[in-house]
Amino acid sequence: MKRRTDLALESRELYQEDNQREPEGVDWQEEQEGNLLLTRVYVRNQQGAAALEKPVGAYITADLGPDWDRDFQGMEQAAAVVARELAALLPPDPACVLAVGLGNRRITADALGPLAMEKIIVTRHLKDAMPEAFENFARVGAVSPGVLGVTGVETGEIVQGVCRLIKPDAIIAVDALASRRMNRLCRTVQLSDSGITPGGGVGPGRVALDRDSLGAPVIAIGVPMVVDAWTLAMDLCQQAGGSLDSEDCPVPEGAMIVTPKDIDALTRKSAKLIGYAVNMALHGGLSVSEIEELLG
Amino acid sequence: MKRRTDLALESRELYQEDNQREPEGVDWQEEQEGNLLLTRVYVRNQQGAAALEKPVGAYITADLGPDWDRDFQGMEQAAAVVARELAALLPPDPACVLAVGLGNRRITADALGPLAMEKIIVTRHLKDAMPEAFENFARVGAVSPGVLGVTGVETGEIVQGVCRLIKPDAIIAVDALASRRMNRLCRTVQLSDSGITPGGGVGPGRVALDRDSLGAPVIAIGVPMVVDAWTLAMDLCQQAGGSLDSEDCPVPEGAMIVTPKDIDALTRKSAKLIGYAVNMALHGGLSVSEIEELLG
Amino acid sequence: MKRRTDLALESRELYQEDNQREPEGVDWQEEQEGNLLLTRVYVRNQQGAAALEKPVGAYITADLGPDWDRDFQGMEQAAAVVARELAALLPPDPACVLAVGLGNRRITADALGPLAMEKIIVTRHLKDAMPEAFENFARVGAVSPGVLGVTGVETGEIVQGVCRLIKPDAIIAVDALASRRMNRLCRTVQLSDSGITPGGGVGPGRVALDRDSLGAPVIAIGVPMVVDAWTLAMDLCQQAGGSLDSEDCPVPEGAMIVTPKDIDALTRKSAKLIGYAVNMALHGGLSVSEIEELLG
Amino acid sequence: MKRRTDLALESRELYQEDNQREPEGVDWQEEQEGNLLLTRVYVRNQQGAAALEKPVGAYITADLGPDWDRDFQGMEQAAAVVARELAALLPPDPACVLAVGLGNRRITADALGPLAMEKIIVTRHLKDAMPEAFENFARVGAVSPGVLGVTGVETGEIVQGVCRLIKPDAIIAVDALASRRMNRLCRTVQLSDSGITPGGGVGPGRVALDRDSLGAPVIAIGVPMVVDAWTLAMDLCQQAGGSLDSEDCPVPEGAMIVTPKDIDALTRKSAKLIGYAVNMALHGGLSVSEIEELLG
Repeated sequence: MKRRTDLALESRELYQEDNQREPEGVDWQEEQEGNLLLTRVYVRNQQGAAALEKPVGAYITADLGPDWDRDFQGMEQAAAVVARELAALLPPDPACVLAVGLGNRRITADALGPLAMEKIIVTRHLKDAMPEAFENFARVGAVSPGVLGVTGVETGEIVQGVCRLIKPDAIIAVDALASRRMNRLCRTVQLSDSGITPGGGVGPGRVALDRDSLGAPVIAIGVPMVVDAWTLAMDLCQQAGGSLDSEDCPVPEGAMIVTPKDIDALTRKSAKLIGYAVNMALHGGLSVSEIEELLG
Repeated sequence: MKRRTDLALESRELYQEDNQREPEGVDWQEEQEGNLLLTRVYVRNQQGAAALEKPVGAYITADLGPDWDRDFQGMEQAAAVVARELAALLPPDPACVLAVGLGNRRITADALGPLAMEKIIVTRHLKDAMPEAFENFARVGAVSPGVLGVTGVETGEIVQGVCRLIKPDAIIAVDALASRRMNRLCRTVQLSDSGITPGGGVGPGRVALDRDSLGAPVIAIGVPMVVDAWTLAMDLCQQAGGSLDSEDCPVPEGAMIVTPKDIDALTRKSAKLIGYAVNMALHGGLSVSEIEELLG
Repeated sequence: MKRRTDLALESRELYQEDNQREPEGVDWQEEQEGNLLLTRVYVRNQQGAAALEKPVGAYITADLGPDWDRDFQGMEQAAAVVARELAALLPPDPACVLAVGLGNRRITADALGPLAMEKIIVTRHLKDAMPEAFENFARVGAVSPGVLGVTGVETGEIVQGVCRLIKPDAIIAVDALASRRMNRLCRTVQLSDSGITPGGGVGPGRVALDRDSLGAPVIAIGVPMVVDAWTLAMDLCQQAGGSLDSEDCPVPEGAMIVTPKDIDALTRKSAKLIGYAVNMALHGGLSVSEIEELLG
Repeated sequence: MKRRTDLALESRELYQEDNQREPEGVDWQEEQEGNLLLTRVYVRNQQGAAALEKPVGAYITADLGPDWDRDFQGMEQAAAVVARELAALLPPDPACVLAVGLGNRRITADALGPLAMEKIIVTRHLKDAMPEAFENFARVGAVSPGVLGVTGVETGEIVQGVCRLIKPDAIIAVDALASRRMNRLCRTVQLSDSGITPGGGVGPGRVALDRDSLGAPVIAIGVPMVVDAWTLAMDLCQQAGGSLDSEDCPVPEGAMIVTPKDIDALTRKSAKLIGYAVNMALHGGLSVSEIEELLG
């Protein structure tokens, strides 16, 4: 009865709960930084990858606390931390970066990626035309390829096709995630250098976005927006000391999600946070107010 | 530890569970009608009202089954049943009806009311100008007053103000509801002749929409779009034979909701269903395709 | 062959062109203020009202120049001027103000009013509950009543109904306007103390929003978003020294509009400007960044 | 002083007006078909292409008349004609077709392409998984690549990248067009087998979508949504017998557009028309009501 999570730190937790020991091939550490808690999980080898069901790589999760979206300063601080961690995962001074907004813009809790793209200062075409005016800016493109069910084309195929033509030095893929815990929703950001498989890797045909398929490093950034309701049900029963057969569970697997009541506003705010962090990491230290001015 | 529900049939269920007996002053009956299950709960007196925490009145719930939105025919059948039950609650041949879409259009799961208004054929101004062309149509208006947190004005005050001026013969108030059970979401419709209190009646200032405040009968139509996550947690623990103190429960009260994954599409479809049913009940037996043509 | 305009300064211009003299009962003056040009037109009596086809009152138009939306500072300066002029038209220290967003939110060039409401900090309900926390704020409500064609109810009836109940000390009515001149679109703001008739006063039933109907002063704020294409055609022919019969004119009267190509973005920016100006006028000198923080 | 148009039949008209003779290398004919007027323009060779500033190919324009969107039947007839003409331009029984929605979804008059994609029944992934269930359907994908100013990536590069991977047998590119005449807006459809250059081919870098770049035939479908206001001004002056220097013209070149007042609704309806026509052409003779049922 597997709990659903996209966060490496929760995969580790689950492994520990299920096996009463740490997974081999996985290291992790926590750092408190003011209000923020940073957790770094490193999947070192195939053994660790099998234990966590995640590719080898670094997974950095920043818990921004419950109040990061309260005021301007909270947003600026949170974006600065995400920008710093993103910059550390990117190759140094990338000449050209392609940002990719995964997910379905017409489903509220899945629209993070496409909405984040609208907050990125796109410069690839402008810098080509006016190199001096954009001296301190990276060449950045931002596309939202849609989802398989809407386009009939694998997201990975679209991104692969674009990358083969424009040959970016790095790809930043933004996606909405699922967490196991409600208190992580819309307030934690996971960054990873191991790429991402759109649609959760279900089915044989799903094309991963990673260095192998795209020819350049792929940094994934995600924010958990939902808890799978079935996962919540399993966790609650366990915590309550009860038990629930799969067939008795009133929550159908995979059909129901738990979100904050104000998920619409929180998705927009989280998209802004990620977009701003990408701008700060790529465009020579812009402040939030400079970013807002450039976005218009 | 009170479970949250807006459905009278669930209030009755909860009373029965908690007290191991039927509430006094409440009658109910079920009828199967093809795929549909109709439940009629009648709160007969103040005793029944206290037991169910609902005003005296009739509460009809139609469970449309899981597939009502699959095809055109399913939608047409479901709308016809809701229209029939609505017509039975309305005064006969009302000259002027005001439909009111409650809820916040910018919150996905709360947008049912405003979206349903967009599917109602509005005729009040046209029938005044061209009485012959609209002979078979009622005079219908449809307003979406917004919510207190967005307008700073009680919804009840806005509707009361409008009703005092235009003096409708009946008011139809459409709102998104909360259910206790996931398997009722987006597939059951509750109609009631007892009015409705926008915002759930929280706080002393909330103005009810009912015959007293508006001077005409108020028929409420609602579709449950969410389960309160805390309510789900309590129910799950009970079912699993476990127990969970309020303080140990990982679900914060009132902050998290459970919805179907495709809540965006289901809200639009449910709004269409309600709007079509209102048109069928008021505008002399229009078919769904005639309605769609008139809506453009 | 009457040109369509909602701006008093253009009505004066047209009178002057048509009659080769200034209208009686009308005074006007211009003031340059940095980049801004302020034009104040005063309709003093019924003679002036007949000449300009506008009610007696003051009409202040601020031309913000072509670049007001380029940067943060331009927006802040423009909002400050509009706020100052608005404050001068409002009664001193109004205890309760109702803002009304006129127009149809689903028509891009007509959505100014409803979009501006989303940028107003609504406090009426909060100040009642927490008077100390909102000491420096006015009690402000903001409603978007919709348009007659969508609701079947005269906008004036809805607003009148609400005002009779909540009895504001002043009403601020925001609406999209038509100008005769393209170079005024999305860069001029007209404020007036004479109220407004939603839907342009066409038809006998249209209810004006003014002191008579609402029981309190009504300040109208509008931004021209469109030029009527037929008006443009007439003006162009005249300027070109040609002539065009009504029946030869390829522009059907009333059916076509001229807008800037980026009308979608300009409507949003103009709505922000008006909303911010209302906040600055009513909520004790908030800055733009404080406003943005409070709006979240 | 070149008038702006994307319609080949207007390019021919303009050539004829300017040169008082028909262009060489261009044939054309008109057919009345019930309420519809079909105009077929064939650019036969480079001489014709130079005269009309359009690539060699067939350009079929269907004028649907002013009332095609009034009722269900009008929509069905219009879609059937467009489907028939589209089928005639496509290769016979294409195994795999990629539809591409050009334009910016956030600009009302430019959103035709992306909105049309939402009305196409996408089957490429389903038919691969369930070949029998989709026996009568073509394999169809539908993507909306965005515009250069938003993504920083040439639309042509994105489409080229995707086509190289998925190798469709034909591409259908849908885009909003500009017409010279207001009475063609939102009621004419141009189909062409010569491809299309997104963004109007301005600038050296613009990548055309055509057989050369994509490796398969490209059928372009467009609906004129705007008249360039400057073009209207020039035409009006000429018609009125006047003259207007470029510098006296109050309409700035390229900045202002003329649209119907209800452009928001007309864009949605036109997108539906195109989407439905694509479905009828590709998916074995579906009716409009079957299409609506499948779209949900």
